[in-house]
Amino acid sequence: MRKKILFLSLLGSTILTGSPDCKAQNLSEPLIIREQGSFAAGGTIVPATGEYDPVNFRNPGGQNAYTDHAYVFYQLPPDAKRLPLIFLHGGGQSGKTWESTPDGREGFQTIFLRKGYGVYLVDQPRRGRAGAASFPGEITPLHTEIMLFSLFRIGQWPKLFPGVQFPGDEESLHQMFRQGTPDTGPYDDTVTIEAMSALFDKIGPGILITHSRDGYPDWLTTIKNDRVRAIVSYEPGGSAFVFSEGEVPEPIQTSYGLLTPKEVPSADFKKLTEIPIIIYYGDNIAEQPTPHIGQDQWRGEMQLAKKFAAVANRYGGDVTVVHLPELGIYGNTHFPMSDLNNIEIADLLSAWLEEKELN
Amino acid sequence: MRKKILFLSLLGSTILTGSPDCKAQNLSEPLIIREQGSFAAGGTIVPATGEYDPVNFRNPGGQNAYTDHAYVFYQLPPDAKRLPLIFLHGGGQSGKTWESTPDGREGFQTIFLRKGYGVYLVDQPRRGRAGAASFPGEITPLHTEIMLFSLFRIGQWPKLFPGVQFPGDEESLHQMFRQGTPDTGPYDDTVTIEAMSALFDKIGPGILITHSRDGYPDWLTTIKNDRVRAIVSYEPGGSAFVFSEGEVPEPIQTSYGLLTPKEVPSADFKKLTEIPIIIYYGDNIAEQPTPHIGQDQWRGEMQLAKKFAAVANRYGGDVTVVHLPELGIYGNTHFPMSDLNNIEIADLLSAWLEEKELN
Repeated sequence: MRKKILFLSLLGSTILTGSPDCKAQNLSEPLIIREQGSFAAGGTIVPATGEYDPVNFRNPGGQNAYTDHAYVFYQLPPDAKRLPLIFLHGGGQSGKTWESTPDGREGFQTIFLRKGYGVYLVDQPRRGRAGAASFPGEITPLHTEIMLFSLFRIGQWPKLFPGVQFPGDEESLHQMFRQGTPDTGPYDDTVTIEAMSALFDKIGPGILITHSRDGYPDWLTTIKNDRVRAIVSYEPGGSAFVFSEGEVPEPIQTSYGLLTPKEVPSADFKKLTEIPIIIYYGDNIAEQPTPHIGQDQWRGEMQLAKKFAAVANRYGGDVTVVHLPELGIYGNTHFPMSDLNNIEIADLLSAWLEEKELN
Repeated sequence: MRKKILFLSLLGSTILTGSPDCKAQNLSEPLIIREQGSFAAGGTIVPATGEYDPVNFRNPGGQNAYTDHAYVFYQLPPDAKRLPLIFLHGGGQSGKTWESTPDGREGFQTIFLRKGYGVYLVDQPRRGRAGAASFPGEITPLHTEIMLFSLFRIGQWPKLFPGVQFPGDEESLHQMFRQGTPDTGPYDDTVTIEAMSALFDKIGPGILITHSRDGYPDWLTTIKNDRVRAIVSYEPGGSAFVFSEGEVPEPIQTSYGLLTPKEVPSADFKKLTEIPIIIYYGDNIAEQPTPHIGQDQWRGEMQLAKKFAAVANRYGGDVTVVHLPELGIYGNTHFPMSDLNNIEIADLLSAWLEEKELN
């Protein structure tokens, strides 16, 4: 048995719960954009056998399907900085991750435009506006509200963590859940990596900024395409870390599941030591094992991140893992790009880009 | 048997095949944007029975699914005109329809921003970034290339119509096919109309601009919500027209299928006579029945549009049907918003908005 409840959209007055100062700072000046648009990057063409029948034109015979591309929306400011930022969302999300926040403040798309960067927002193949997949898929409604509340480290359901950087109103939480959009075909890292690499082939060198489960395409896109000039990874996870042969650490057991790092050839791993990489984790990550899945998963992921950094740096890499509370920045969730302090988080990143002379 | 062919992304030099003059006109000045962002509008919350189990957290029990909302991306210029434009895509498409064109020129999103309008681009529920559906769906690869080439009136496969307003290069055609993204759940006009009405509730009065099969949600959103202050419909179709009781014309047989207009209560139909409506059709529409599905379907749809206008205007309405070749504008496909002459098409619309004092 299930029933539907009509969801009343009541944005308006309650939506702007961010600090008034932030809002004023964001909107004090208009955005200036030299060019904006969207396109498909990469993809495959899948023919159907047989001949086209102009009477039974709905039959596939003789007709191609255009599939497995990424969808990309871009905006370029005048006098853009040398390297654009390419934003790749995480599991269950789309480019929406980087647009405005659940409570309507500016997201990284607009914040970094204001900082003078060209921005490219990707929907990975088989997700969002890039839904045309080369294999069939089945979709069912995702009853994942409480699980995501925990994995996103907003709180312990139904209570928010004290001081969490997430707005306390119900509508913001609903907007956050509605950001999710399902896979439209079998999830396949290789397909994402192919499309991401095609995107870099098209636009040239840039900085890859990723989130969560897409940590894995991070590393492999970079191994595949030397136009990735730096990686910025917000809370990579999903057993996503790669290590060179002989350096793979033991899997880590968490209450969310077993986190199993992956092995890549040493020659491939070496490519990850040739560019600057920064990895950020937020607050409310457990120090000891706990049954709370969100706090525990990210405990394990951050441990793997630190091992990844140690190995990469031992081989001459430049990998930094930032645990935000160690900088005195508290309350960040799994979505620092849309948290209440996202301008501070963005400023941290631009300082790093400057330090690495990537701006 | 099917095989995959790697699709080489070769945009770059070949992408800008629009007339240099148009390109120069478009890009001569930067865009100025006061505010941009995205949000979910409308939707339902679907509970699952049972209790949440924190160990088996992937079980649906006790968890809500957030579904059937629209995704909306908006941009507002400084000193925006009084009424914004709300763009709703057609069948098999997403908000991408209104973004940049298959050959990389500016689309209606940007052209109308430059004209001073606020713009809202919708992904309807169960499509694109609004993929979370309240019912399960199955997706298969769409082998529809030749069918769409005909229905979009680009030509008679594989030849383009002489003088067609579509670029002749292969990459543009591939980009056009890759705009398509599948339904992620059962298609349901009611769900779209609910979400569109919630959007108007949130943002206030505006002008609804639609394309193709979404002609039906056009009329019904307007009947449901008096914040729709005008309708602009590009090539409405899909048996989409509504008529008042006693005024429903006979279905029209075409080689694409039978086009069957729908009946609505007279009190509802009356609402469509209270706002200005304009309907545009392009070129290469047959005058007599023909086996070419694209040329024949639109013959039937345009006939129904003219009947709709005649009935609405007899009841005091203000409905205009524009067949572009009658204005000396030739070669338009089913996607006039992205055709090579899309600036001319946009100028036609802004002249109409001005004439109706909607600007």
